[in-house]
Amino acid sequence: MPQYHPPLRDMQFVMHEVLDVVPKLQELAAHADVDADLINQVCEEAGKFCSEVLLPINISGDSEGCHYDPASHAVTTPKGYKEAWRQYVEAGWPSLNAAPEYGGQGLPHIVGSVVHEMENATNQAWTMYSGLTQGVAELLSAHGDKAQKDLYLPKLASGEWTGTMCLTEPHCGTDLGLIRSKAVPQADGSYKISGQKIFISSGEHDLAANIVHMVLAKLPDAPEGSKGISLFVVPKFLPTPEAGVGARNGIFCSGIEHKMGIHGNATCQMTLEDATGWMVGEPNRGLAAMFVMMNRARLAVGVQSLGLTEVAYQNALAYAKDRLQMRALSGPKAPDKPADPIIVHPDVRRMLLTARAWAEGGRFLAYWVALMLDQSHLHPDEDVRKDADDLVALLTPIVKAFITDNGFAAANECLQVFGGHGYIREWGMEQYVRDARINLIYEGTNTIQALDLIGRKVLMDNGARLKKFGKLVQEFVEAEGVVESMQEFVNPLADLGDKVQKLTMELGMKAMGNRDEIGAAAMPYLRVVGHLVFSYAFARMAKVAQDKIAAGSDETFYQAKLQTARFYFAKLYPETAAAIRMARSGLKPLMDTEAVFA
Amino acid sequence: MPQYHPPLRDMQFVMHEVLDVVPKLQELAAHADVDADLINQVCEEAGKFCSEVLLPINISGDSEGCHYDPASHAVTTPKGYKEAWRQYVEAGWPSLNAAPEYGGQGLPHIVGSVVHEMENATNQAWTMYSGLTQGVAELLSAHGDKAQKDLYLPKLASGEWTGTMCLTEPHCGTDLGLIRSKAVPQADGSYKISGQKIFISSGEHDLAANIVHMVLAKLPDAPEGSKGISLFVVPKFLPTPEAGVGARNGIFCSGIEHKMGIHGNATCQMTLEDATGWMVGEPNRGLAAMFVMMNRARLAVGVQSLGLTEVAYQNALAYAKDRLQMRALSGPKAPDKPADPIIVHPDVRRMLLTARAWAEGGRFLAYWVALMLDQSHLHPDEDVRKDADDLVALLTPIVKAFITDNGFAAANECLQVFGGHGYIREWGMEQYVRDARINLIYEGTNTIQALDLIGRKVLMDNGARLKKFGKLVQEFVEAEGVVESMQEFVNPLADLGDKVQKLTMELGMKAMGNRDEIGAAAMPYLRVVGHLVFSYAFARMAKVAQDKIAAGSDETFYQAKLQTARFYFAKLYPETAAAIRMARSGLKPLMDTEAVFA
Repeated sequence: MPQYHPPLRDMQFVMHEVLDVVPKLQELAAHADVDADLINQVCEEAGKFCSEVLLPINISGDSEGCHYDPASHAVTTPKGYKEAWRQYVEAGWPSLNAAPEYGGQGLPHIVGSVVHEMENATNQAWTMYSGLTQGVAELLSAHGDKAQKDLYLPKLASGEWTGTMCLTEPHCGTDLGLIRSKAVPQADGSYKISGQKIFISSGEHDLAANIVHMVLAKLPDAPEGSKGISLFVVPKFLPTPEAGVGARNGIFCSGIEHKMGIHGNATCQMTLEDATGWMVGEPNRGLAAMFVMMNRARLAVGVQSLGLTEVAYQNALAYAKDRLQMRALSGPKAPDKPADPIIVHPDVRRMLLTARAWAEGGRFLAYWVALMLDQSHLHPDEDVRKDADDLVALLTPIVKAFITDNGFAAANECLQVFGGHGYIREWGMEQYVRDARINLIYEGTNTIQALDLIGRKVLMDNGARLKKFGKLVQEFVEAEGVVESMQEFVNPLADLGDKVQKLTMELGMKAMGNRDEIGAAAMPYLRVVGHLVFSYAFARMAKVAQDKIAAGSDETFYQAKLQTARFYFAKLYPETAAAIRMARSGLKPLMDTEAVFA
Repeated sequence: MPQYHPPLRDMQFVMHEVLDVVPKLQELAAHADVDADLINQVCEEAGKFCSEVLLPINISGDSEGCHYDPASHAVTTPKGYKEAWRQYVEAGWPSLNAAPEYGGQGLPHIVGSVVHEMENATNQAWTMYSGLTQGVAELLSAHGDKAQKDLYLPKLASGEWTGTMCLTEPHCGTDLGLIRSKAVPQADGSYKISGQKIFISSGEHDLAANIVHMVLAKLPDAPEGSKGISLFVVPKFLPTPEAGVGARNGIFCSGIEHKMGIHGNATCQMTLEDATGWMVGEPNRGLAAMFVMMNRARLAVGVQSLGLTEVAYQNALAYAKDRLQMRALSGPKAPDKPADPIIVHPDVRRMLLTARAWAEGGRFLAYWVALMLDQSHLHPDEDVRKDADDLVALLTPIVKAFITDNGFAAANECLQVFGGHGYIREWGMEQYVRDARINLIYEGTNTIQALDLIGRKVLMDNGARLKKFGKLVQEFVEAEGVVESMQEFVNPLADLGDKVQKLTMELGMKAMGNRDEIGAAAMPYLRVVGHLVFSYAFARMAKVAQDKIAAGSDETFYQAKLQTARFYFAKLYPETAAAIRMARSGLKPLMDTEAVFA
C-alpha cells in the first residue's frame, strides 16, 4: 500500500522562505495574529490526520466505491468514510478557513491550501466531500443574504452539513447557457425548482445530516443563454426554524456514475421535482455568482493534482531505491547485490525528477495564489488588492490546467517506474493515474482554461494582467541577473519572458483577423505561459537556496532545491520550444480539414 | 457503446498505394500467388468478425473480468469470450500466418498485421489470447526440433491449443539474468521444472483444450546471468502420442492480478512444481531464442496501440459531430441549432487530428515493418534480406515505444473530447486509456525500447542500420524535393534527417566518455527518430495522394491524406524541437542529484 510522508519541510520552505507569508499576512487585519508556529502546527496536525485517517481508506474506497439504493435514493460511501468524516468534524477541520463570526477559525487561505494538498495526496475522492462544502460556504459568504449566511454558514463550518454545486445537465456542461432546469417563484419568496442535473460530485451520501445544493436554474421569464441563469440554494432537508433538519425536499439522487476513478466520491444524477429553493444573489445573475465557487474550485483542482503528484513521487522514489534490476551502463553501483537499485539508471531518475519538479513548481504556484487570494480580499491598500486580484485571475487557469496536465503526466511517469507492478491495483499507482485523470476535465476542461487564459485573461485587457506578472519577472531578472551564480536560472527565465511577450502580440494580431485563432493557439499558449510561471518559481526558489547555502544552513536540503531547478531547466523547460511553434502554426492546419471530417 | 468501422480503405491505401505490397510479396516464392483481391477479402472478413463478435464483448469483458478459483486453479474468462474463441477457431483465423505444412494458410505477415489491428481495436484483452498463440508458433517454428514442430504447430494453427511466454518472476522482469526457475534433466531427455512466474498473460483460461507455455529456466550447472538461461516448452496437459490431451502437468495458475485494464485477459501467477518440459533450442541459449517471440510481441504491441488509436478516434469524431456545445468563436456555424457541434472548435479538431495522425503514421510504420519481416525471411536476394532485416531491427523499438506512447496520448485526447462523459465507463473511452496504458510497459518498457534503439540498434553498429534508413529518406528527398507541391512535406523531412544525423554523432561521442549518457538521451532520442520515421511516412503518403489527385481520382479521400499530413507537420512534428534539446542536455542534470535523492 502506498506510503505518504507529509512534505512539511518543503511546504515550510515555500511558505516561509520563498513567499515570506507571515509578514504579508500580518498586513491583513484579519490575520494580524498569524505566526509561523501556528501555521506550521496546523499543517503538522493536518498531516497526521491525512496519513493516519485518510490514507488507509484510499485504496479500499477505490475498490469498494459508492453504492446506490434506487428504492430509497440513498448512497452509501465506502467503509471508513463516515468514521473519517466524524473524526474530521470533531477535530474542527471543516472550520479552518471559515469566518469566526460563523464559527470558523478564520485561518488564511494558504493554510487551507497546504492542508488541501495533503488531503488530496492521501484521498482525493474523500476530500471532494469537504472541498465542495468549503466552496459552498465561500459562495454563500459572497452572495448569500444575511438570513442565508446565518442559517447555512455555521452548519457548513462545523461540517454538520455538506455542500454541492449543481450546474451540469445531460445536454450541457461547458455551455451552461443551455440549462433547462426551471425555477418558479412562490408567494412566500421561495421557488419550486424542477430539472435534471448530472455529474454532481458528493450529491448524495451518508456522511452528514443535510446537503446544501447550489443549483443553477432559469426563471420562467429568463432571457436566453447564460444571462438568464439564476442561482438557488436547495437543501436536501428543509431547515427548521431552529436550523434543524426538517422535511425531505424534492431533490434526490436518481443514480450514480461508474467512473474511471475517484470511486469513493458519489457522482450523482440529481432529479429536482418541485424542490423548494431560495434565490442567492440577483435574478439572472446566477452564473456570475457561481463563478466565486467555480474559481475557488479551479484552484482546488490544481491542488488536487499537486497532492497526487507528491504522493506518486514519494512512492516511486521508495520503489526505485528498493527494486534491484540491471547494472548501470557505466558499471555496477551495488556490486555486493545481485543487481543495482533502479535509481542508478538515468531514465528512472528522469521520471522521478519530472514528478518532483512538477510538484515543487506546482506548490510554489498554488501557495502563491492562495496568499494573493487573501491579499486581494483583505489588504488595506486598494492597489495591492487590485494587483493581487489581477494576478489571481491570470494564474487561476494555469493552476487548474498546467498543474493538472503535469500531475497526470507525473502520475504516469511514477507508475512507469514500477514497471509491470505499476499496472497492478494493489500497488496503488494506477489509482493515482485514474484519479488524476478527472482533474483535466471537471470545473472547466483544460481547453476551457486555456481559452480563459488567452481570451479573457490576456487578450481582453490587452495584456494588462500579463504585464503585471511580466513586471515581477523583470524585477527579479534585473535584481538577480547580475549575480554570476544565478545566470543559469535567470537567463532562461528572461529569455522565455521575451518570447511570451512576442508570442502574445503575434497571437493578439492574428485574433483580430479571426477569433478562431484564439482557440487554435490556446492549449500550447497555456503550456508556454505555465512554463514562464514555473521558470519564475524555480528561479526564485534557487535564489533562496543559494542564499541559505551561502549563510551556511542545511546544505543537503538547499542543494536539492538547486538540483531540481537545474533538472527543470534542462529537461522540462525545453517543451517551450515545441509549444511556441505549435502555438504559432495557427488555425489553418486545424480548419482546412474539410476532407478529413467529410 | 463504442462503434467501430474497419478502416479498410485507409488500410488498402497504405498496403496497395503507398507500400505497393502485392508485387513485393510476389517476389517471395511462398507468396507468389498473393493478390490484392485475396488480401482485401481476408481483411474485409476479419473486419466483420471483429465488429460483430469481438466488439460487443469488449466493455462487458472489462466490467466482468476474469475469475480465479483457488480450489481448482481454474480461470473463467468473461461471458462471451469462449464462444468468440470457438467462432474464431471455426472460421480458421488462428491459422492465417501459419505455415501450410502445419495446417496454416501461409498468408504474409502484413495481412496478419491488418487483422491484428482490427482485433485490437475491438478487443485488446481477448486478442491477447490469440496473439500469444501465434507468437509461440513462430518461436517453435524458428527454434523447435522436428518432433516439437510436428506436435505443437498444428494444434496452435488450429487454435485448439493456445500459448504463453513465461519470463517474468517476482524479483525480475527487465533483468532476466536473475531468473531462479530451475530445470533438472531427466533420463528420458525431458526436464523437471520448478519455479514461480508472474504477469503471465493468458496463463490460464477456459478457451482451449491445452496451453503451451514457453518457459525460461536455468539448468543446474548454468552460468550466472543472462547467458545461463534455457528455454522449455511446458504444456498444461502432457500430450498423448496421438497429440491428444493427457495427464495434467505440474504447471498451474496460483492467482490472477487485478489490473488497471485488459481485465478480460487473465494475467496469471504461474507455479511450476516438477513440471515436465522439453528444451527448445540449445542449453543456455534460451534468451536469444526467446527474442524471436519477444521481437514479434514488440511489433504486436505497437499494433495493439494502433488499433486502440483508431477506435478511440472514430468514436471521438462521432461524438464531436453530434454534441452541441457553445458557439464557434468566429460566429455560429449551426445557427438553426441551440449550439454548434463541438467539432467547430479548433482545439477539438486538434485533439481529433492528433489521434488521426498518430493512427495514420502508425499504420504506415506497422505495415511497412510487417512487409519487411516477410522480405527478411523469404526474399531470394540475400542483400534484400539483410537490408530488410536491418530495418526491421532498427524500427522494432520505434513500433513498440513510439506507437504506444502516441496511442496512450491519443486515447487521452479522445477521452477529453467527451468532456465529463469521457470519464464515465459506459461510453467506453476510459477503457481505451486503461487498456492502452499497459502497452507502454509490457514486452520491455518503453525505456528499454529506447535503450535498445540508441544502444544496440544505432550506436553498436556505428549507425549502419540508421544510415540504411537515412538512405531511403535521402532518395525520397532527392526525388521529390524538386517538386514544388511537395516542398511543404519534403523540407521538414530533410531538415529532421540532418538533425538526427548530427544528434546521433554527438550522442555517440558523449557515450564514449560515459556510457550512462546513452540512458540519459534514450527517451527523447526515440521521440526524435520516431518523428523522422513518421515524417517519412507522411511525406510518402502525401506524394501518393498528390499523384492520385493529379490523376483525377477520389478527391476527398486523398485531400484528407494531404490535410492530415499538413496537420502532422504543423502540430505534432514540432515536438522534435523540444526532444532534441532534452536529448542534448545530457546526463549531468539527472545524475548530479545526490542531494535530491539523499
